[in-house]
Amino acid sequence: MVKRNVNFNPGPAALPLDVLNIVREELINYQSSGMSILESSHRAKEFEAINDQTIMLVRELLGLGADYHVLFLGGGASTQFALIPMNFIGDGKMAAYVDTGEFAAKALKECQIVAKAHVAFSSKEEQYRRVPKMSEIKYPEDIAYLHVCSNNTIEGTQFREFPNTGSVPLVADMSSDIASRWLDYRKFSMIYAGAQKNLGVAGVTLLLIHDDFLAKRKNGLPTILSYKTHADKKSLYNTPPIFGVYIMKLVLEWIKSKGGLAGMGKINAAKKDLLYGAIDAAPDFYKGTAEKDSRSWMNVTLRLPTQDMEDKFIADAKKEGLIGLKGHRSVGGIRFSIYNAVSLVDIQKAVEFMGKFHKSC
Amino acid sequence: MVKRNVNFNPGPAALPLDVLNIVREELINYQSSGMSILESSHRAKEFEAINDQTIMLVRELLGLGADYHVLFLGGGASTQFALIPMNFIGDGKMAAYVDTGEFAAKALKECQIVAKAHVAFSSKEEQYRRVPKMSEIKYPEDIAYLHVCSNNTIEGTQFREFPNTGSVPLVADMSSDIASRWLDYRKFSMIYAGAQKNLGVAGVTLLLIHDDFLAKRKNGLPTILSYKTHADKKSLYNTPPIFGVYIMKLVLEWIKSKGGLAGMGKINAAKKDLLYGAIDAAPDFYKGTAEKDSRSWMNVTLRLPTQDMEDKFIADAKKEGLIGLKGHRSVGGIRFSIYNAVSLVDIQKAVEFMGKFHKSC
Repeated sequence: MVKRNVNFNPGPAALPLDVLNIVREELINYQSSGMSILESSHRAKEFEAINDQTIMLVRELLGLGADYHVLFLGGGASTQFALIPMNFIGDGKMAAYVDTGEFAAKALKECQIVAKAHVAFSSKEEQYRRVPKMSEIKYPEDIAYLHVCSNNTIEGTQFREFPNTGSVPLVADMSSDIASRWLDYRKFSMIYAGAQKNLGVAGVTLLLIHDDFLAKRKNGLPTILSYKTHADKKSLYNTPPIFGVYIMKLVLEWIKSKGGLAGMGKINAAKKDLLYGAIDAAPDFYKGTAEKDSRSWMNVTLRLPTQDMEDKFIADAKKEGLIGLKGHRSVGGIRFSIYNAVSLVDIQKAVEFMGKFHKSC
Repeated sequence: MVKRNVNFNPGPAALPLDVLNIVREELINYQSSGMSILESSHRAKEFEAINDQTIMLVRELLGLGADYHVLFLGGGASTQFALIPMNFIGDGKMAAYVDTGEFAAKALKECQIVAKAHVAFSSKEEQYRRVPKMSEIKYPEDIAYLHVCSNNTIEGTQFREFPNTGSVPLVADMSSDIASRWLDYRKFSMIYAGAQKNLGVAGVTLLLIHDDFLAKRKNGLPTILSYKTHADKKSLYNTPPIFGVYIMKLVLEWIKSKGGLAGMGKINAAKKDLLYGAIDAAPDFYKGTAEKDSRSWMNVTLRLPTQDMEDKFIADAKKEGLIGLKGHRSVGGIRFSIYNAVSLVDIQKAVEFMGKFHKSC
């Protein structure tokens, strides 16, 4: 048995050991093809099968039909911050953004470089401790789209419901909570997510774009920057990030084996209940930073009474094999990132450590 | 022993078995870190060391100093077709392009979408059977840069020398021949190359940008589309394609063990001599498609007397474990892609098969 740490990294993050074992097993000779999947042409039947199966698994697990294009692109979610306004905001139009954290604000800023943006809500003045109530989101009716970030990785907040936007397309960055729970993904005209948190490894970004939204795109962009190019070729216009798509397929199959998104959501609910329970049981020592209604099920952020204690917490945890607990450099503190591949047993270990650490102080 | 095919895929392509074995060995527990490199944060010391070492290896092997930024980006070389003119052609200026094949023409076309382009040479009318003599390349003196594609993967041609452009920055797409031979890489203001041919796996593109050229960039681009962003952060502005950089490091170490680019170039020269020798020994049967002076050392393209014979050649070769030989769909015929990881022994097997096949016809 290999000694493995409990990995609370915020992304790239833990992968299911079952998935890593399959990757290892197949690495030199992929399914008797006489070569590694890393050496397969993207035009070979081996990879085309992976591409097609991954598209089908995404649609099946998220409850989407063929009216959604499923794309696998390089460049990270940050690239989409620029490409979304470039593709979808026509001359003289604008889009609206909900500003709930550092990444939401980055998306907004990129939009402002290429077009006009309306801020539909911001919790910046409240140190991003919460997401809005639906009634607080305000925007003009003729916008190109409304953009939200469903889970704020750095700040530890998450949307539990999403606005009904009627004819206004709703676009979501779901990098840090996609496929972690069941919800009506059909509410969204576009969803995008870097794979390195809940869907696999860094280097591939999943995009879901409804056909009606894609039809509203602008023309005249460089070929590679237009979503139409990739939608028309099922992400095979140029060489795709093959290994990332392959791992995404394995992770989706693993999620399916856990009962799909409903099953995954139950496990994630039990995990967050246990961890927030430990925080709330010692509120003078473990101080959750997000408002309770806005707490994320994926990134659990907290402070301790002093920074020295936080440093000791992180160092002591590491000795016990609990790693990746340092809060983002912009906010400090402690952060447990508990994506799909972190198990309930992992959380039990963390909670046990928290009790022990508190007593020792 | 695992049965491995001889892989002549044009990219993604063969990897050194030594590299695959290291990846497999380290996959579950990277250097006693208690996790896979696939699970490492890009801010962790494990990955920062890989990033720094890969930068140093690139500079060492290619003979470049700290005046070249070494970047690892997602999106493929095709993304650079758009980003280069977006970053470097100022208002009212233009760039010049040498049109020697399908990918060179794609780069030109993307430039024409965002700016003006001058065609400095084209062999399109000659079915791209050759690259230019240096004296044939003509362009106005005030262009932003001159763009060449050093090796034409589809057409099987390659530059053996490069123009002296004086104060005009020289930019090269070296996707299919980077690190395959020693040359003065310092002639270039910018070099870019998808990794999936000579440097590893799909999903990461190597960029080398001289500081003086970067200083000439335009401002006002979306953050993620500006090369300055990535140069300032050593490719760590957003999550990089971690696995691709890790593999590139292993491939560069493998190249170093072969005597660096001088050693690699000798091996590649012996490989192409053997393969072109077999073609030229039966010129009425094996017809090389590139003009002799322009022949590529990386992609050896040929036709047989009939398409039926070509189909049989590919099918019979496959039975002997020689795969990836079908010419690109746009030109047909046979193509041996013989990048760094294809060995001289592999070529001997191919040549032996060619002799046998010819006799059987």
